[in-house]
Amino acid sequence: MFPKNAWYVACTADEIAENPLGRKICNEKIVFYRGQAGRVAAVEDFCPHRGAPLSLGFVQDGQLVCGYHGLVMGCDGKTVAMPGQRVQGFPCNKSYPVEERYGFIWVWPGEPSLADPALIHHLEWADNPDWAYGGGLFHIQCDYRLMVDNLMDLTHETYVHASSIGQKEIDEVAPKTRVEGHEVITERHMENIMAPPFWRMALRGNGLADDVAVDRWQICRFSPPSHVLIEVGVAHAGHGGYHAPAQHKASSIVVDFITPETDTSIWYFWGMARNFQPQDEALTTSIREGQGKIFSEDLDMLEQQQRNLLANPQRALLKLNIDAGGVQARRMLERIIAGEQSAQADGSAT
Amino acid sequence: MFPKNAWYVACTADEIAENPLGRKICNEKIVFYRGQAGRVAAVEDFCPHRGAPLSLGFVQDGQLVCGYHGLVMGCDGKTVAMPGQRVQGFPCNKSYPVEERYGFIWVWPGEPSLADPALIHHLEWADNPDWAYGGGLFHIQCDYRLMVDNLMDLTHETYVHASSIGQKEIDEVAPKTRVEGHEVITERHMENIMAPPFWRMALRGNGLADDVAVDRWQICRFSPPSHVLIEVGVAHAGHGGYHAPAQHKASSIVVDFITPETDTSIWYFWGMARNFQPQDEALTTSIREGQGKIFSEDLDMLEQQQRNLLANPQRALLKLNIDAGGVQARRMLERIIAGEQSAQADGSAT
Amino acid sequence: MFPKNAWYVACTADEIAENPLGRKICNEKIVFYRGQAGRVAAVEDFCPHRGAPLSLGFVQDGQLVCGYHGLVMGCDGKTVAMPGQRVQGFPCNKSYPVEERYGFIWVWPGEPSLADPALIHHLEWADNPDWAYGGGLFHIQCDYRLMVDNLMDLTHETYVHASSIGQKEIDEVAPKTRVEGHEVITERHMENIMAPPFWRMALRGNGLADDVAVDRWQICRFSPPSHVLIEVGVAHAGHGGYHAPAQHKASSIVVDFITPETDTSIWYFWGMARNFQPQDEALTTSIREGQGKIFSEDLDMLEQQQRNLLANPQRALLKLNIDAGGVQARRMLERIIAGEQSAQADGSAT
Repeated sequence: MFPKNAWYVACTADEIAENPLGRKICNEKIVFYRGQAGRVAAVEDFCPHRGAPLSLGFVQDGQLVCGYHGLVMGCDGKTVAMPGQRVQGFPCNKSYPVEERYGFIWVWPGEPSLADPALIHHLEWADNPDWAYGGGLFHIQCDYRLMVDNLMDLTHETYVHASSIGQKEIDEVAPKTRVEGHEVITERHMENIMAPPFWRMALRGNGLADDVAVDRWQICRFSPPSHVLIEVGVAHAGHGGYHAPAQHKASSIVVDFITPETDTSIWYFWGMARNFQPQDEALTTSIREGQGKIFSEDLDMLEQQQRNLLANPQRALLKLNIDAGGVQARRMLERIIAGEQSAQADGSAT
Repeated sequence: MFPKNAWYVACTADEIAENPLGRKICNEKIVFYRGQAGRVAAVEDFCPHRGAPLSLGFVQDGQLVCGYHGLVMGCDGKTVAMPGQRVQGFPCNKSYPVEERYGFIWVWPGEPSLADPALIHHLEWADNPDWAYGGGLFHIQCDYRLMVDNLMDLTHETYVHASSIGQKEIDEVAPKTRVEGHEVITERHMENIMAPPFWRMALRGNGLADDVAVDRWQICRFSPPSHVLIEVGVAHAGHGGYHAPAQHKASSIVVDFITPETDTSIWYFWGMARNFQPQDEALTTSIREGQGKIFSEDLDMLEQQQRNLLANPQRALLKLNIDAGGVQARRMLERIIAGEQSAQADGSAT
Repeated sequence: MFPKNAWYVACTADEIAENPLGRKICNEKIVFYRGQAGRVAAVEDFCPHRGAPLSLGFVQDGQLVCGYHGLVMGCDGKTVAMPGQRVQGFPCNKSYPVEERYGFIWVWPGEPSLADPALIHHLEWADNPDWAYGGGLFHIQCDYRLMVDNLMDLTHETYVHASSIGQKEIDEVAPKTRVEGHEVITERHMENIMAPPFWRMALRGNGLADDVAVDRWQICRFSPPSHVLIEVGVAHAGHGGYHAPAQHKASSIVVDFITPETDTSIWYFWGMARNFQPQDEALTTSIREGQGKIFSEDLDMLEQQQRNLLANPQRALLKLNIDAGGVQARRMLERIIAGEQSAQADGSAT
């Protein structure tokens, strides 16, 4: 169960640099490619001729050519040409609204007429020379909401990421959760603590002492369908914490775009945006590798949790205060999904 | 859906040279082995004692011995002996009509009383010293008819095999398809073109210039249940094409025996028979390797096409002129299968 | 179908030396670990907070800590603590009666109130300095009763283990099978034969000539739910066989604990206990390696037999005299399972 009328991250720009990319998004098998003038396109990954996957084909003169018998598919799902054939009567493929923005390809798997590019989540740090971004992609066998839960309850850092970003003080400070418009925000501020290894590295990387007390913050922002952006950072203690001036802190934004593949699998685009030393590409690489290692620690937990839940459908899970972020996110999703279903029912009735 | 009352290639002679071979053919689990006097035998791969696979056993004195507790199985499916046991009352295994011919083991998975060895597809080039044959075996996860379609529409060469046997002129000449008795024939003749890399190699191998215009032909012959033999070749242009005298051409027969394992998987026996330099074993090897490489390019396409079709059962596929060979082959198969089913219904009624 | 009110071997002591162990036993997902004072504990492998597998956690101060968000689970299935939470109202996990004995961890997957440690199978050779034990564990995809059948009919040694313990004389001597109380015993005594390779090695290892005639015995004892202990040995011929004085023989006990994982998969704990040269650890290792190699020869047979049986549910298997041990064992199991089911029905009715 996921919203269909929403912009999801489908892939990164480099994934379609050379060849078409076949990827299932929200149970739809889609091929992504660069069409005319390099503009990105997305159509059903199914050749109307004999059902071959179009993603095994290639792009020629801005058009997608089926790699089996040469059918030429248009960006709108209509067949453009095929050697020796009249193609006017060929059945149409679905095409999907798709936009390239911030280095990501965004797709709208639902009703195309509702796809307004203005609804794409705004990333104020992207396309901004003061910021740098690095990230990666994991394919995980779990419901996308388990990953939302994971990111909206960072007490798991103490256990899953004990050697990098975890510390017992996370457990000791209760988070505060609220809903603001279309956003669920859960935040935690820890004062006068010692930074864990990852943040000591970041302090040093930013030219700051790493052996003094700091204030640490985590501000998780969920927005539908499944984006979680987390402001994280530490400041030397006593300078205002989150609000401390730049010269006293190291901070960044953890970026999580969680795209359902099926009901129990996801494409997880993770990364980190930072506004210090944005030109330092070696630092970008080093942070990406560190973050990739940390995030990979979650994979086995999430996949085994998913299997446990499938095997025990009768067990209700607890909703503690630490779970409030995930719980509110699920409520917001339920309302959106119910709205989509009733709109669909209305549509069918008329 | 496949004919059961038909001779299928089960394996090659060398596959049963040392040990029994367990192979599923048309959904029947069968063990093939050499019995008395080396004569090939085929029985259910199931020991009547405790259900062990007989194919894990061995052949002793021309009899198949179960590798679990020593039951000795006869070629007719009747247990011959078992240490310390009277075996007269043991239940019978199915046995299957089986013949060795042309280096292949042929099996009849249907009604044994109808199995006439004279019905085995005649290969005029086999057992003929003027011809040489080399081939291989692929296990592919697709309906056998997708492979028939593939071989009866060679426009795919232009796309799947672009670097070896493909060329745009294939797309430009429409094929002609006809049914002759129990055979579907689809053919294409291309005149005054340059040969693609594979055929240049063949011309050179045959002592002919490879940098002059040629006439090229492809004559695909489908015969039930699922054999496709394709006459292919090139002749220096202007000497009569397919009918050119031997000294002006390089030609061969592509051999395809497609044996269903299940409804969505096949054993694909492919090869090439040629009537030039038949004694040159190095050439046989080199052609087999080249052909194996070319044919392996089809595997991923066929398997992904199969998955696409299973996921989209509601989509009707197109039947273009280039598909006529496959379409006619499917019609012939449908008639045969319907005939088998009505014969079976009659049999049950009486 | 397996008894649930019974002690099964869940793991060996060394498997829980460092970390908790998650293992499915009789379709129950259980985590095993050492709690207070090193005492073994077993609870459902499911965190009541969010369904994470507790087996991915760790033990701290004798308590199992969930590796996701730090819930502390008690040995009785009640949550003990969780950072920042009141846990009194948390739902209880199942806990399982569990005992450590003879180097094995024994679990009772059924009704806990019936779990009497006195019912654990007594191993007279364990914890006895005159004896040494070595063994291993295989995970096999078959019904546990197929492994019981295997061990209660040793004619398979002639075929599966031809190069080590098999010999044609096994086939030539019919076994004698009887039921004694809660035990099924099937035995075979072969007189005045030459020992097969494995036993020649054992004779030499025990300082005895290996090139003279011996008497050989196999006494298989099945006891529910699925233990098979087999007295095996050879004595120089004419000294009384099984009853020969120690200086004329080499003998040991083959130990088999077969624990169902699911209806079609098992954890197979195999080993050998011997009462000669018990301090010789190199000999223990060498015997374990030899036995492991021999027993691994059964794996493919059992797994393919299982697949054959699942594919042919309509075929009744034979019950020959050599199968009597397995047949009697199955009857005993059927009575036990029927008893459990009627007790459960009575319980529900009142």
